[in-house]
Amino acid sequence: RRCGAAEVIFAEGKTPEQVVAIVRTLREQGGCVLATRCTDEQVAMVQSAFGGNDQLLVDALARTIIVGDPPAPADAAPVCIVTAGTSDLPVAREALSTCVAYGQPAELIVDVGVAGLHRLLGRLDTIKRSSVVITVAGMEAALPSVMGGLIEAPIIAVPTSVGYGSHFEGLAALLSCLNACASGIATVNIDNGFGAAVMACRINALAHPNTVEAS
Amino acid sequence: RRCGAAEVIFAEGKTPEQVVAIVRTLREQGGCVLATRCTDEQVAMVQSAFGGNDQLLVDALARTIIVGDPPAPADAAPVCIVTAGTSDLPVAREALSTCVAYGQPAELIVDVGVAGLHRLLGRLDTIKRSSVVITVAGMEAALPSVMGGLIEAPIIAVPTSVGYGSHFEGLAALLSCLNACASGIATVNIDNGFGAAVMACRINALAHPNTVEAS
Amino acid sequence: RRCGAAEVIFAEGKTPEQVVAIVRTLREQGGCVLATRCTDEQVAMVQSAFGGNDQLLVDALARTIIVGDPPAPADAAPVCIVTAGTSDLPVAREALSTCVAYGQPAELIVDVGVAGLHRLLGRLDTIKRSSVVITVAGMEAALPSVMGGLIEAPIIAVPTSVGYGSHFEGLAALLSCLNACASGIATVNIDNGFGAAVMACRINALAHPNTVEAS
Amino acid sequence: RRCGAAEVIFAEGKTPEQVVAIVRTLREQGGCVLATRCTDEQVAMVQSAFGGNDQLLVDALARTIIVGDPPAPADAAPVCIVTAGTSDLPVAREALSTCVAYGQPAELIVDVGVAGLHRLLGRLDTIKRSSVVITVAGMEAALPSVMGGLIEAPIIAVPTSVGYGSHFEGLAALLSCLNACASGIATVNIDNGFGAAVMACRINALAHPNTVEAS
Amino acid sequence: RRCGAAEVIFAEGKTPEQVVAIVRTLREQGGCVLATRCTDEQVAMVQSAFGGNDQLLVDALARTIIVGDPPAPADAAPVCIVTAGTSDLPVAREALSTCVAYGQPAELIVDVGVAGLHRLLGRLDTIKRSSVVITVAGMEAALPSVMGGLIEAPIIAVPTSVGYGSHFEGLAALLSCLNACASGIATVNIDNGFGAAVMACRINALAHPNTVEAS
Amino acid sequence: RRCGAAEVIFAEGKTPEQVVAIVRTLREQGGCVLATRCTDEQVAMVQSAFGGNDQLLVDALARTIIVGDPPAPADAAPVCIVTAGTSDLPVAREALSTCVAYGQPAELIVDVGVAGLHRLLGRLDTIKRSSVVITVAGMEAALPSVMGGLIEAPIIAVPTSVGYGSHFEGLAALLSCLNACASGIATVNIDNGFGAAVMACRINALAHPNTVEAS
Amino acid sequence: RRCGAAEVIFAEGKTPEQVVAIVRTLREQGGCVLATRCTDEQVAMVQSAFGGNDQLLVDALARTIIVGDPPAPADAAPVCIVTAGTSDLPVAREALSTCVAYGQPAELIVDVGVAGLHRLLGRLDTIKRSSVVITVAGMEAALPSVMGGLIEAPIIAVPTSVGYGSHFEGLAALLSCLNACASGIATVNIDNGFGAAVMACRINALAHPNTVEAS
Amino acid sequence: RRCGAAEVIFAEGKTPEQVVAIVRTLREQGGCVLATRCTDEQVAMVQSAFGGNDQLLVDALARTIIVGDPPAPADAAPVCIVTAGTSDLPVAREALSTCVAYGQPAELIVDVGVAGLHRLLGRLDTIKRSSVVITVAGMEAALPSVMGGLIEAPIIAVPTSVGYGSHFEGLAALLSCLNACASGIATVNIDNGFGAAVMACRINALAHPNTVEAS
Ligand SMILES: Nc1ncnc2c1ncn2[C@@H]1O[C@H](COP(=O)(O)O)[C@@H](O)[C@H]1O
Ligand SMILES: Nc1ncnc2c1ncn2[C@@H]1O[C@H](COP(=O)(O)O)[C@@H](O)[C@H]1O
Ligand SMILES: Nc1ncnc2c1ncn2[C@@H]1O[C@H](COP(=O)(O)O)[C@@H](O)[C@H]1O
Ligand SMILES: Nc1ncnc2c1ncn2[C@@H]1O[C@H](COP(=O)(O)O)[C@@H](O)[C@H]1O
Ligand SMILES: [Mg+2]
Ligand SMILES: [Mg+2]
Ligand SMILES: [Mg+2]
Ligand SMILES: [Mg+2]
Ligand SMILES: [Mg+2]
Ligand SMILES: [Mg+2]
Ligand SMILES: [Mg+2]
Ligand SMILES: [Mg+2]
Repeated sequence: RRCGAAEVIFAEGKTPEQVVAIVRTLREQGGCVLATRCTDEQVAMVQSAFGGNDQLLVDALARTIIVGDPPAPADAAPVCIVTAGTSDLPVAREALSTCVAYGQPAELIVDVGVAGLHRLLGRLDTIKRSSVVITVAGMEAALPSVMGGLIEAPIIAVPTSVGYGSHFEGLAALLSCLNACASGIATVNIDNGFGAAVMACRINALAHPNTVEAS
Repeated sequence: RRCGAAEVIFAEGKTPEQVVAIVRTLREQGGCVLATRCTDEQVAMVQSAFGGNDQLLVDALARTIIVGDPPAPADAAPVCIVTAGTSDLPVAREALSTCVAYGQPAELIVDVGVAGLHRLLGRLDTIKRSSVVITVAGMEAALPSVMGGLIEAPIIAVPTSVGYGSHFEGLAALLSCLNACASGIATVNIDNGFGAAVMACRINALAHPNTVEAS
Repeated sequence: RRCGAAEVIFAEGKTPEQVVAIVRTLREQGGCVLATRCTDEQVAMVQSAFGGNDQLLVDALARTIIVGDPPAPADAAPVCIVTAGTSDLPVAREALSTCVAYGQPAELIVDVGVAGLHRLLGRLDTIKRSSVVITVAGMEAALPSVMGGLIEAPIIAVPTSVGYGSHFEGLAALLSCLNACASGIATVNIDNGFGAAVMACRINALAHPNTVEAS
Repeated sequence: RRCGAAEVIFAEGKTPEQVVAIVRTLREQGGCVLATRCTDEQVAMVQSAFGGNDQLLVDALARTIIVGDPPAPADAAPVCIVTAGTSDLPVAREALSTCVAYGQPAELIVDVGVAGLHRLLGRLDTIKRSSVVITVAGMEAALPSVMGGLIEAPIIAVPTSVGYGSHFEGLAALLSCLNACASGIATVNIDNGFGAAVMACRINALAHPNTVEAS
Repeated sequence: RRCGAAEVIFAEGKTPEQVVAIVRTLREQGGCVLATRCTDEQVAMVQSAFGGNDQLLVDALARTIIVGDPPAPADAAPVCIVTAGTSDLPVAREALSTCVAYGQPAELIVDVGVAGLHRLLGRLDTIKRSSVVITVAGMEAALPSVMGGLIEAPIIAVPTSVGYGSHFEGLAALLSCLNACASGIATVNIDNGFGAAVMACRINALAHPNTVEAS
Repeated sequence: RRCGAAEVIFAEGKTPEQVVAIVRTLREQGGCVLATRCTDEQVAMVQSAFGGNDQLLVDALARTIIVGDPPAPADAAPVCIVTAGTSDLPVAREALSTCVAYGQPAELIVDVGVAGLHRLLGRLDTIKRSSVVITVAGMEAALPSVMGGLIEAPIIAVPTSVGYGSHFEGLAALLSCLNACASGIATVNIDNGFGAAVMACRINALAHPNTVEAS
Repeated sequence: RRCGAAEVIFAEGKTPEQVVAIVRTLREQGGCVLATRCTDEQVAMVQSAFGGNDQLLVDALARTIIVGDPPAPADAAPVCIVTAGTSDLPVAREALSTCVAYGQPAELIVDVGVAGLHRLLGRLDTIKRSSVVITVAGMEAALPSVMGGLIEAPIIAVPTSVGYGSHFEGLAALLSCLNACASGIATVNIDNGFGAAVMACRINALAHPNTVEAS
Repeated sequence: RRCGAAEVIFAEGKTPEQVVAIVRTLREQGGCVLATRCTDEQVAMVQSAFGGNDQLLVDALARTIIVGDPPAPADAAPVCIVTAGTSDLPVAREALSTCVAYGQPAELIVDVGVAGLHRLLGRLDTIKRSSVVITVAGMEAALPSVMGGLIEAPIIAVPTSVGYGSHFEGLAALLSCLNACASGIATVNIDNGFGAAVMACRINALAHPNTVEAS
């Protein structure tokens, strides 16, 4: 539940064997296990090791895998995950998988960046039904600012590394999120869909207290 | 309620006359007005302009002023605002004033930085009673990481500019917050006590829905 | 007309006596003289030296002074200068003074930042009447991105140093402008209202060729 | 026409299949489609999917492809695209392809960097015939400064990532462009030949109003 | 013993042949030779060149190789090497190999990062038995701060490049270490397990003067 | 003894009244109190509050004050504090005061920067008598590298903010220290004479175990 | 002659008394003494201490003072010091004073920045008479690049802090100089007129070997 | 002779065919041609194209090739090229090849970094025989500072990208060179052995005027 703790594995930089071994240990403690930032090779080895007995949910784009049955989604308004472009989709899908693993319902709205404002405004009613919103945006990441002026819900901004040149691997987007003039916005690390989702799940669980607790 | 909107004034860089004029306009729309980042001169001029008719709440350390009656605090668990050192106090008090102006109860726990772990652990029971926690920390800002490993509530991390040398005016603390290995943490701009409090108030209002609406 | 050439003086870092001396030399060559980034003291000394004979246009907020009659404004659609907040006004007014000195009509729309989208949309018809638009925005500078999705005219983005903490004196706003996902946007230096206006005047003169040439 | 909108595809980071699918959608709306930053593989798949029916213009150096007939070039002075070195050519050619797709005439002048001033001065008459000039330069990017002192037309500066060491992937060139002491210069992102060309096409269309509208 | 001196080779960027040649020269001077940052290829060639006659200690994870018999470990309290996560292990193992080569006893405690405080506290008694402690931590590197509040021994902090996004290849961890609010901490370069160990060995030798001198 | 703990006060950013109050509290717990980074005003108020009863040691250059009798210096080799230039003296003297307050003998060698190598070599015998050395150097901070090649003792490098231009307030010196090619060097924050001295005192106490314990 | 050695004093950060004392010591060793970066107060105190007996050369703009007779200028071609703007003059004059103190003839050409190329070309014959050239330029510092394409002599580039916004206190100019595409250019620190002049004097002395040696 | 001019080719980023074509053009103008930063493939193709008729000098480590007979070395003291470590050798050898191509004698002294001061001092007599010295150093690049205190000749400092972590690809070394406290030092770009050598050749030609002119 925490960094270094049991149910989540940050697979980046680990060998496939290490990932399988950690999944095994965690599965023995019960509960489903979420692995993020998986390579194809890691996914393949986890599939062959656990595919026989356990339910596996693999999202190749998100590079996530869930081993074992995730909790049934809480009876709550969905966490709303909104992206500026299609290139931001992998990060958004990492957030989505995390919500699944944490038992919170979530919904994804893609490609409503501020340069096409009508598309964003066209989805506003849907967005407003959520208690908490995650924005996923690279380049100049203007989406959380505009969103902050349109809705009342707390917003978690994920800057992405989508961009080039003076984007400096996501720095430009990160600074935009941190300096957003609208209020009700807090920011997580560049490309950190997982972290945004954990924060959102905790808030959603507070807003819908009869649901399972977002650990 | 939003950037450029009515009820909050970011006084930095404005003349005292401008601040008075904006307060007047906003007061005519009803509701209390919060001004942040006020100079002594701005506070004095606001006091002489409104002190006759309106209730005034001035926090000299926070450099905030609230003109008019703030909403009665919601019947909710308090937002918990925790600082690492005493030098972080002005930022924490800006957050506190903001909670007052937004009608959410709040409580302040000061000087429980991680280098004196026993003091932090000694206050843990109190902290755990809150639905949302704000950490305020400069230097290496290890507080949100440690806190994230100890509590279940969502944490809003405010890095402060308290430090010197390679602190680079708060950059070191900001990067620490963004890279915290614990989950359930989101970050606002350096020294942005106001922004953290708005986020916290929105979450607290979700967690205690029978209270007045945050924002 | 160029850096180091005659008709414009960048007063920053010069003594009042130097400014007066340069204005005198330039006035002898004929034409009006624009001085930017003037201190109160520089303005006062220019006023006492030239106020007897020459028309003087002083904008204290913009910190500009025009000595001598500027050209009559061209018979053209105005350059449209749009700011996100009121704190961006000095930079916008420097741009306005520059348009005056260069003989291009200009109009100013203030405080239509993206966190209050309705205000921006409410001014869109006016903005669309211009052939070229200057956006002036600090903090996360989302204005040029949103504007770029709404209009066809070329946009010149001026990032401002309005902000704090991770704004890094305008860097956050600058990176936002450079990484704007909308197209038809080019950027000038932080707080460079003058440079944006010269670019805009050149474009406006091209769009309205029967007018005096924007040098 | 906008970020994420129809007629232009930023191919970087997309699979060949995605590029083909987006081209197909856009072609159905009519008009030609420009794809930038294409890999060889993307180009090959687009060629085999559309080469039978549509005209294809591929520029391997620019990494661009235009599917369908671009508009006939406007009867206007050409946009002038000037490079400092031969290594800047791919970026300049991306600008050129963009002008083609947007129906504005353009001309390319290569390798006239400021260290060989005579070559630049030898092409000055040609350059002065254009209403708008794009400079493409890496290393210390002195070209826009020198150009700004020689011509009256608005200049769009594209810094390139050509350089090494303290060039920091184009940062040195970007800062040079932004700090150019000559006026009449605005800057786009590092290596952003596309963005410079869209800006130039909009200006050229204003200068030659009887032509087809840029974008 | 120093940079450019005999007994240690920094293998990064050297050809396998160069590494073998330098090992040969150093071996002729007597004493064991430590090579750090070795590639698999370098290790293989060193093994085939020296494996017949010399004892070889290879640590594939640490990417180190010791050729020849290291000194018997001193009769002293071990240098304690503590990591925040498992991904920090290669750096910690480089430190461990260095202690071996320098004849100081060392012990490794892994994965006791601050987000799981109980695990760190559970190992505190062991840690307190050492005269000098090395912390190895990436991400926000809060470990040395917390450690500094818990023990009296001098602490050498090694920030690691483990992290992503705004971690900027270890910069975030480095700044954390340098700005740690606890005292008794000094810092070495990112991922520099070797340098930390040399410093620690010198201190340990001072604390246990009857042992062989840590060169 | 730790951050936020009793015996040391970091006076920067505190009011004189706050400093006096904290000194009072700490004095009541017994032991001497060290305050660093004091303004003249803070020193004056501490002097008038405690000068009647307590011994006061004020170092105006170091901006330190010790209230109460410091421990008698341990019977040990002195900590050796070496500066590159005279401008580094305030930082070196902060280190010296700290050693006094911690009861470790110390000695100061000034202005032996590497551009005058003979002066450094002339003091080498003295330096070699110490068990631990602190180097204090700004500009390019080459001193720890050269020192590291000359002595066997552990070296604590303090980069200072002495320099200008591309020194970036001490960054150049800090990076030099962290990248020193000699081994046996660890680094503290820019201008952190206090932190270096605490580390040195802990090491010196280990090397001379019959002395009072550092901190 | 070296850093920390006798004949030159870097006065920045020293008290007037310290400057007088160091001048006195150095004068006793014979030869003239150059002090750079002097405040008015330092100059005044040096004047009252030495003005009775010694020749004094004060340059208020350069903030330099030479106490005692400088060597007669060598019979050599002058070092040529060229500035881009008038704001670069203080740095250029520091270089000039240094040449005087080192006994090398020098000449100053001001305000020939590249945005007014004709002025630079108009002075080229004069410039070409020198064996070594110093360029002093802020903003985008294009001057050394252009100069490098026009002359054969070695060029020492001094970037200055003249600029604002993304100039970042001289960083933009520094990077320009370091990345200049012309060859035969080397760079010194931002605003370091002194360092450039020492380098130039050494070269000039080599080129005119019958002159006094530029130490 | 200049950037973009004839006799030197910067091969990085060019196809082998382009390199061959440019060499051919330049050879037709007479004189030898130097290509730097060549890949193995480029070298091979140049060899097969010109190896039949022209003398070829290939330095695989330096990645340089000289086509045609270089000028006979001038009858002058050699340019002295000194490296701190063996990893700096490729950059030093690029400088050496450049000297060959420019007809100036040069000599190479390797691995005399400041951590082994005796080796540097042991070569000092040789170094002092040169009129101009190039230092090539990575990591903390303390070599030019120490050298500047030992010799009278002008020094050209080449920082290299040899290092890791907070070296930031050569930035640490670059800042060290620029902030060197010794005088008589000027700096070129990171890894720019070519640029340092051109500067040194120009100085050496001035110092030995009867030699062929270093263009
Ligand atoms: N201390 C603060 N830090 C950041 N933003 C603030 C602060 N105080 C107020 N604000 C924001 O600034 C807006 C007002 O800006 P302005 O229109 O310039 O007065 C408010 O609506 C808030 O969103
Ligand atoms: N992993 C490492 N990180 C930093 N420095 C190292 C490392 N391993 C060896 N060294 C240093 O590099 C020197 C050898 O460098 P070289 O002469 O290039 O082989 C050794 O004497 C050590 O001081
Ligand atoms: N000059 C200094 N630089 C860095 N840290 C210091 C300095 N002086 C004191 N400290 C630390 O700051 C703590 C006191 O902080 P405070 O509680 O704000 O007074 C002390 O316990 C020291 O660890
Ligand atoms: N290794 C190098 N580093 C920096 N500049 C170089 C290098 N080699 C060649 N040059 C410069 O690049 C110019 C040739 O560039 P190009 O026209 O692109 O071939 C030459 O005239 C040199 O001034
Ligand atoms: Mg762990
Ligand atoms: Mg506003
Ligand atoms: Mg000028
Ligand atoms: Mg899109
Ligand atoms: Mg070596
Ligand atoms: Mg405290
Ligand atoms: Mg000195
Ligand atoms: Mg060229």
